[in-house]
Amino acid sequence: MSDPLRALLVRDDLRPFFLDGHGLHLLDQRDLPAHETWRVFGDGGVIEGVARSIEGLAVRGAPAIGGAAALALAAFARRPRGTLASFVDTLKQHDARLRRTRPTAVNLFVALDAIAAARDAAAGRADARSDDVAVAVVDAAEAYCHVDEAACTAMGAHGAALLDDGDVVVTVCHTGALATCGQGTALGVVKSARKAGKDVAVVALETRPLLQGARLTAWECQRDRIPVTLITDGMAAFALNRGLRGRRIARALVGADRIARNGDTANKIGTFALAVACAHHDVPFHVVAPTTTFDETCPDGHAIPIEERAADEVRSARGAPLSPVDVGVWNPAFDVTPASLVTGFVTERGLLSRGASPARSASPAAAARR
Amino acid sequence: MSDPLRALLVRDDLRPFFLDGHGLHLLDQRDLPAHETWRVFGDGGVIEGVARSIEGLAVRGAPAIGGAAALALAAFARRPRGTLASFVDTLKQHDARLRRTRPTAVNLFVALDAIAAARDAAAGRADARSDDVAVAVVDAAEAYCHVDEAACTAMGAHGAALLDDGDVVVTVCHTGALATCGQGTALGVVKSARKAGKDVAVVALETRPLLQGARLTAWECQRDRIPVTLITDGMAAFALNRGLRGRRIARALVGADRIARNGDTANKIGTFALAVACAHHDVPFHVVAPTTTFDETCPDGHAIPIEERAADEVRSARGAPLSPVDVGVWNPAFDVTPASLVTGFVTERGLLSRGASPARSASPAAAARR
Repeated sequence: MSDPLRALLVRDDLRPFFLDGHGLHLLDQRDLPAHETWRVFGDGGVIEGVARSIEGLAVRGAPAIGGAAALALAAFARRPRGTLASFVDTLKQHDARLRRTRPTAVNLFVALDAIAAARDAAAGRADARSDDVAVAVVDAAEAYCHVDEAACTAMGAHGAALLDDGDVVVTVCHTGALATCGQGTALGVVKSARKAGKDVAVVALETRPLLQGARLTAWECQRDRIPVTLITDGMAAFALNRGLRGRRIARALVGADRIARNGDTANKIGTFALAVACAHHDVPFHVVAPTTTFDETCPDGHAIPIEERAADEVRSARGAPLSPVDVGVWNPAFDVTPASLVTGFVTERGLLSRGASPARSASPAAAARR
Repeated sequence: MSDPLRALLVRDDLRPFFLDGHGLHLLDQRDLPAHETWRVFGDGGVIEGVARSIEGLAVRGAPAIGGAAALALAAFARRPRGTLASFVDTLKQHDARLRRTRPTAVNLFVALDAIAAARDAAAGRADARSDDVAVAVVDAAEAYCHVDEAACTAMGAHGAALLDDGDVVVTVCHTGALATCGQGTALGVVKSARKAGKDVAVVALETRPLLQGARLTAWECQRDRIPVTLITDGMAAFALNRGLRGRRIARALVGADRIARNGDTANKIGTFALAVACAHHDVPFHVVAPTTTFDETCPDGHAIPIEERAADEVRSARGAPLSPVDVGVWNPAFDVTPASLVTGFVTERGLLSRGASPARSASPAAAARR
């Protein structure tokens, strides 16, 4: 049963996780860039291990969270145990545990919904056996990962067409291979453009408090030989205004954790500030996200739950204390960029542009689903 | 001769430096908030000690840099040595050394210009003695500090009139007592409003890379019992958009390092991003600065030199490595907020408002000098 999953093994591209006979291997992104620490969760402890890895940000990035949760269920399911009823019941408990990890990224729920549907369909057949449910869960998990990987490739192709030779692109947080099951979303577009021969450079916002830009985007760009300049989040507006040592920033490309029906986009805190600065300077601002990130059940940005995280994330950086230990803190992990500030969405199905008016005639979520 | 300087000693208000018989005592702000380390520079080593303290940011804040340089010259001058000619020559060399420390804040040059003028006037008299030059230098240095202190008090009174009971004020970097010779500029306005009985709270941007907001503003607010909430720089726009836990941000108050003739304002990197976000949300954005910060010789923001600092400031935070050690970095210490984004200037002479149009009829620098 692990054979169909072996395809996830044999690539030498950067991947945030893979399954093999030992269990689920997961790159602990908290240790990057100093150390490449791989954690291995055997089939017994894989659910709690991956749940805590998601909560603790060992794995992060909306599409990758979905992939990690999916492969955790696959790793558990591939060794079915107990009666059909008890096996399905345990799978449901594991599904519930994984849903309780992080609230904002919708891809997690998309992946778990797909696996739950496959599980229930298999279990509902007249002659259903535990093995059938196991195969259905593994297949659905693998499908999520493969669909996400293919989406990254397609987004790269569509997005690369936006970029010109010599462009400098600003981005926030980390949207590369480690955040997805493929080459990445926004950073994947840069990779596709460079593969197409365009000399595209990246300006990475460090992305306080957890510094995914400084740690992961800078590291992945260096690994893939993409020219990268690191700046603090507060420098982005001035970089858009003055350029970086004479090089104008051509556009912003960012990822997304959830896109509402009206196009309002939740993404890593700092994204909205970047969008405001881009609008001020008439610099195009594109969101790069697979259609799994579009949430048609969510009318607008105010309906997107925004995770607030621990105060000590702001009071410190990589273990170093920064502020008085007891100072009050506000620490939203995400913000919401209104659709009116988004020039367009790059999805695996193509580019969805918005009209010049903030009042949008078509729902990007609906368009993305078409 | 140290008697007139003793007035700087006997206050229990927070001060970044003072002179006594041992020399110049300077609070090393790099160690805050963990430690209150006072460095003492005896009259011999005081010039190089203060120059390096300014370069290394042990003392920072545009008005305080001017005060530290002034008191360094006073500490040296109060024990005149050699002939009149050699004493004046040494004073000129020390003046030149202090001018080479940091390029952006204009107050440093205002202070040194005033002292140089007093020095040359005293030395130029027919019966001039070294002692006369010494007294002139000490008096000019003390005058700079006292004028700055009085300016802070006056700015506080003028600015406090802008604030309503219950207001939440967002600020960047640190603009309190440690940045001036008085109670502060922007943070001084908050102090005056609170002394007037208004319940005003502060949202402090941490201000990467050197974290003056997290380290100094948070610390000084706690010390003075001002309610303060610390956020990262990338959260400011979202805080303006959504409020902080239900409390709307009423306005931004920031300091300045140099204000050009047309009102363009250089201040700590991240200020421009905050101004753009305030403009996007129609939140008033005031610059609080003494008239010594207005540079009439500077036509606009493009003429203000912007100091670029070491890459490792961005690659690390308080000694903790954040990014790959060799990643490329852009690290401007300041940015320029165009006059069109400034609602008004709070000076010791009153409030200078700009018209609604970005094209301004009057020079704020000229108005400030009137």
